[in-house]
Amino acid sequence: MRLSQLFGKTLRQDPAEAETASHRLMLRAGLIHPIAAGVYSMLPLGLRSYRKIERVIREEMDAAGGQELSMPALQPIELWQQTGRHGAFGQTLFTFQDRKERLLCLAPTHEEVVTTLVSLNVQSYRDLPQLLYQIQTKFRDEQRPRAGLIRVREFAMKDAYSFDVDADALDATYRRVFQAYKNIFARCGLPAVPVEADSGAIGGKDSQEFMLLAESGEDEILRCSGCGYAANVERAAFVKPPAPNDAERPLEKVATPGKKTIEEVAAFLGVKPEQTLKAVFHAADGKVVFVVIRGDLEVNEVKLRNALKCADLRLATDEEVRGAGLVAGYASPIGVKGVRVVGDDSIALGANFVAGANLDGHHYKNANYPRDFTVALLTDIAKARAGDTCARCGKGAFESMRGIEVGHVFKLGTIFSEKLGASFLDKDGQKKPIIMGCYGIGVGRLLAAAVEQNHDEKGIMWPAPIAPYHVHMVGLQLDNPQVGPAAEKLYVDLQATGLDVLFDDRAESPGVKFNDADLLGMPLRVTVSPRTLKTQSVELKRRSEAQARNVPLAEAVAAVRQAVDEASRAATGRPAA
Amino acid sequence: MRLSQLFGKTLRQDPAEAETASHRLMLRAGLIHPIAAGVYSMLPLGLRSYRKIERVIREEMDAAGGQELSMPALQPIELWQQTGRHGAFGQTLFTFQDRKERLLCLAPTHEEVVTTLVSLNVQSYRDLPQLLYQIQTKFRDEQRPRAGLIRVREFAMKDAYSFDVDADALDATYRRVFQAYKNIFARCGLPAVPVEADSGAIGGKDSQEFMLLAESGEDEILRCSGCGYAANVERAAFVKPPAPNDAERPLEKVATPGKKTIEEVAAFLGVKPEQTLKAVFHAADGKVVFVVIRGDLEVNEVKLRNALKCADLRLATDEEVRGAGLVAGYASPIGVKGVRVVGDDSIALGANFVAGANLDGHHYKNANYPRDFTVALLTDIAKARAGDTCARCGKGAFESMRGIEVGHVFKLGTIFSEKLGASFLDKDGQKKPIIMGCYGIGVGRLLAAAVEQNHDEKGIMWPAPIAPYHVHMVGLQLDNPQVGPAAEKLYVDLQATGLDVLFDDRAESPGVKFNDADLLGMPLRVTVSPRTLKTQSVELKRRSEAQARNVPLAEAVAAVRQAVDEASRAATGRPAA
Repeated sequence: MRLSQLFGKTLRQDPAEAETASHRLMLRAGLIHPIAAGVYSMLPLGLRSYRKIERVIREEMDAAGGQELSMPALQPIELWQQTGRHGAFGQTLFTFQDRKERLLCLAPTHEEVVTTLVSLNVQSYRDLPQLLYQIQTKFRDEQRPRAGLIRVREFAMKDAYSFDVDADALDATYRRVFQAYKNIFARCGLPAVPVEADSGAIGGKDSQEFMLLAESGEDEILRCSGCGYAANVERAAFVKPPAPNDAERPLEKVATPGKKTIEEVAAFLGVKPEQTLKAVFHAADGKVVFVVIRGDLEVNEVKLRNALKCADLRLATDEEVRGAGLVAGYASPIGVKGVRVVGDDSIALGANFVAGANLDGHHYKNANYPRDFTVALLTDIAKARAGDTCARCGKGAFESMRGIEVGHVFKLGTIFSEKLGASFLDKDGQKKPIIMGCYGIGVGRLLAAAVEQNHDEKGIMWPAPIAPYHVHMVGLQLDNPQVGPAAEKLYVDLQATGLDVLFDDRAESPGVKFNDADLLGMPLRVTVSPRTLKTQSVELKRRSEAQARNVPLAEAVAAVRQAVDEASRAATGRPAA
Repeated sequence: MRLSQLFGKTLRQDPAEAETASHRLMLRAGLIHPIAAGVYSMLPLGLRSYRKIERVIREEMDAAGGQELSMPALQPIELWQQTGRHGAFGQTLFTFQDRKERLLCLAPTHEEVVTTLVSLNVQSYRDLPQLLYQIQTKFRDEQRPRAGLIRVREFAMKDAYSFDVDADALDATYRRVFQAYKNIFARCGLPAVPVEADSGAIGGKDSQEFMLLAESGEDEILRCSGCGYAANVERAAFVKPPAPNDAERPLEKVATPGKKTIEEVAAFLGVKPEQTLKAVFHAADGKVVFVVIRGDLEVNEVKLRNALKCADLRLATDEEVRGAGLVAGYASPIGVKGVRVVGDDSIALGANFVAGANLDGHHYKNANYPRDFTVALLTDIAKARAGDTCARCGKGAFESMRGIEVGHVFKLGTIFSEKLGASFLDKDGQKKPIIMGCYGIGVGRLLAAAVEQNHDEKGIMWPAPIAPYHVHMVGLQLDNPQVGPAAEKLYVDLQATGLDVLFDDRAESPGVKFNDADLLGMPLRVTVSPRTLKTQSVELKRRSEAQARNVPLAEAVAAVRQAVDEASRAATGRPAA
């Protein structure tokens, strides 16, 4: 492709709205263009990378035994009411009436439709297993679209769904898709890290996310420095630190005027935060829940939501707290009535806690569970943090990293097959619900994450396998009678070897051209100019290296091919396709 | 692919809802599945054909100089208000509010977005021409979705848009895309016929549709038996037959009690239909329009809409007709007041017409235009019919055929570029609007039209280039110790030559297997059975031929390859890819 003809101009200036490196660089390089909040066009250069990723995904999903199909975005709302997810998705689900006043939605995911299809096409264990996938457009009315293609309202996703006869068969399928995902990321030159993830209120037992590490990542990952266990912060299992566990002393009410926070009260009473109980108020599906957790720990909302099995969870408002008869800053689990109390199991690790007295300016000393108060539910709802001890090995400490979730594999179990009647007759003629798994890769997000992970201050540094073009050829002074023909010949010869070549044939200055080459970020830059031709050579420069080198014109094609293969091997361990 | 594992079951019975052959066969063969009116999933077998078409389209559009991009479906309504098409699409446009109460729509086509993109990325004549295309999902809330994938509410379309400096440059681009379309249909084995089409109220001068001839087609095409000129019935230019053109006689009111239709009045007064004037009432954007046309002709609503430049056109209701002071059955252009009168130019071809007297039970004789009445607009608004004389050659007669529109090429001119500010500076530094063209192929519709055109009573007969698989291999008695290994070996060997093979390895009867092979319609059936192996042979049968033949097992792979190439050559003139 000649750069003079390529649709999509590079921008000299950083766009004001860009929040992250990938957002900024993808706009500046002319890969994407927004038309509304979280809604983008993919321009030709961006689409080339996108298609390369798509091809890798298809090949690996096919190799894993997947069959591609394509399900629609428009869906009748009744299907979503049947699984109850109409409510669970809430405002994220775009809904509207058609001209006949039937309520439709735009699908944010396809469990409902694929399970319905399977219920109609699978009768016997002989029809299983099935692994179905599509690369299709999803719609989600996100509250806060952000960071370019990282969080958008319309996006392409590879979603796959598996259907098996039992848990062992699902295990095998899950492992197969997991391996396919590892292959996909490796072949794209993107070292994604699998981490344990929350499997949600509806979840089966296994759920893993693939993360590309990047400072701008939305997700916090905790990794054990000892055993290497890695998990999403929402999921990470940790050992709660001990707290003094003396014999229980009598409950005692003390004045703590104006001391409301854990820090203030602990300092005032001369105790440590782990010797206090913190009260946190949430509204779960609109009802106030009183959460008690040890003062040194924080509530993990995902664990809490799963424990409560609620669809909507948020912090309660002051008004809701007062309405429940509680005194903010001094609220107490002792003697509380008419409010559901949930305790983190840390409240049983330790004794003689300081707790609120539900009386302005007063706390209790020596509050003990379950002597002084009870809870409706006692479970782990605390959030792991960097420095906490890994529960897997019991020794190592967590370190914190940020990442972008680019893939998710998930054991669904029978939630959907039971609700939508997807069953099969087993070998004994018994009717059983099909066991499902689901597997997703956000294709556009993967593209953005690739840029997020691979750039410098000058621009993008594409991993070779997903670069829009392998080679960025710069011609300088193309109206020079030597340069023009030499550059044109090289352009043709390089393409003839199967390389994708972008040829900057514009009438621009060397500075503009080199800056654009750095911004667009192809793995190899090849320059043909009066200066290089004076020594019958061309200049080669890897995007990832500062130094350029000259190679004889006669060997240019072979040298370029070799350099591209090296770049590809550096990214994936194998030469360019 | 083993048929035992293929997702998507064949149906023994015709589905009740199927209206046309392609609808019926695509459901029965498990290619598609509906989830709402006009909304389908594409199952694996259907998607394979779809992807083959898609690949051909991409290759030809790239070869024509197209650059692929991908524009979103979600669009802000403001963009559509800017071009006025919010109103023109009316209820066909799905619209809804997002969570922030901004009005969005789902794009039925992409002129608005692509023109906006071009306005931002094109400044100079040096940035032109541009030919941009995408294969993307469109949404249209059709009043009457029908016939499976022929008319749906969500569908994949290859839409392309061209941008040129002037009319000559557009001509060149248009011809290039026209040739690409011819190549696409030819390579798919689908002989699409280009016909002249209506270019609409907004149109430029050229517009052509590509039609696949099929009895169930929605569109009527007229083709001149003389010169070969072909046009959509809405567009076809014809020579209006003469009518007696005597000297004008005095206007005379006559009683025609109970005679309302042209036939009744003509018979009663002893004249021919072409000696009468017909009054037809339309509502154009809600206002009654009185249309006068010679009694032997019919109004062409498309020509009328273009002449009136209105968005909405329909027949007026009786109430609207009475409300305009007109007497239905006896309405007259003579003396009519307060209503816009539009005349077909046939009213000037002939004299002394019978016309209504706007008085119950009465007509005029010897009504003459313009002596007795005037019209606000006199133009061609008559519909051509089979048997009419072709206006192109002036000699041949039209024959009527039915077809399915599978492609459309269209010169848009500057309508969109002017409204959306897409301009460029020409060589002299003058700012000018960019000249546009647009070009569409409905990919799913093309698939359905292919089935509509290629089937018999037993099932589909795929043109080889777009068949989901080249070969349908039937194994009979696969548990037989000779058959099983021979079939497995052939399955592997055929695939190794690059052929797509569907292997019916199910434990079904020969009858079920052969019926499914006919239903699924791959170009070549290969049978391995105890009977064929007795003579060390396999049986080959072309789907398009009744007779099978046996070939030696040792030559089977070469014979199959040759037969597939022959089938491909029969469809496209070249061997299978």
